[in-house]
Amino acid sequence: MDLNYIEHIGIAVNNLEEATAYYENVLGLKCYSVEEVTDQKVKTAFFMIGQTKIELLESTDPEGPIGKYLEKKGEGIHHIAFAVNKLEDQLADAEEKGVRLIDKTPRKGAEGLHIAFLHPKSTHGVLTELCEKKD
Amino acid sequence: MDLNYIEHIGIAVNNLEEATAYYENVLGLKCYSVEEVTDQKVKTAFFMIGQTKIELLESTDPEGPIGKYLEKKGEGIHHIAFAVNKLEDQLADAEEKGVRLIDKTPRKGAEGLHIAFLHPKSTHGVLTELCEKKD
Repeated sequence: MDLNYIEHIGIAVNNLEEATAYYENVLGLKCYSVEEVTDQKVKTAFFMIGQTKIELLESTDPEGPIGKYLEKKGEGIHHIAFAVNKLEDQLADAEEKGVRLIDKTPRKGAEGLHIAFLHPKSTHGVLTELCEKKD
Repeated sequence: MDLNYIEHIGIAVNNLEEATAYYENVLGLKCYSVEEVTDQKVKTAFFMIGQTKIELLESTDPEGPIGKYLEKKGEGIHHIAFAVNKLEDQLADAEEKGVRLIDKTPRKGAEGLHIAFLHPKSTHGVLTELCEKKD
């Protein structure tokens, strides 16, 4: 595989407003976007730091992936996302090397990116997202 | 507070050699340094991706912080570290804003950085490290 940089870090939070206040008022970052991703049953808030984004994730449905994560593990770092080119090729390469894919083909994520997840069972415990910006 | 960029992501792993093989052979990153931090009871391996490092952490003692983390939660993302200037001032600012400090004063971390941790109880579940490069 060929990874460009860390596109974002996804962090599960109980309450987007309270967490945003912490990221803005304590850490001094600036929320530049709030977006609901109905497909993933989350509301997200984005902050830029260096070349990487922090994506806060609040669940909109206890049965969604973030709802279940929060129920089981509580607030915390949920996933890491790498920016790539040729996402389909990267997925094929990962699968060939024995990685279990959550998404066999790319789908649409927040900010219009094409995304796909690798399963933490085959990535040493790290839920890993690959994302590609398509024009 | 004033954060510059994400200096590294710390990831707890059961076996540094096996995890390094995954990061090198599957993800295509290159391990540029292996270092034991006896103080923290860990052996670390470093990879660069964009402006951020990935720091894999293997425990050298089940009673150390990573040993306990692995026992409780298994492999996964352990902490996020932000590069800062004037670390003492950032800590004072964080404390003034109600953040619980794990380290009231900076100490030496891997790669000779001055580091200090903020407690996840006051950072919405994210074990947060601040680090400063001192010449």
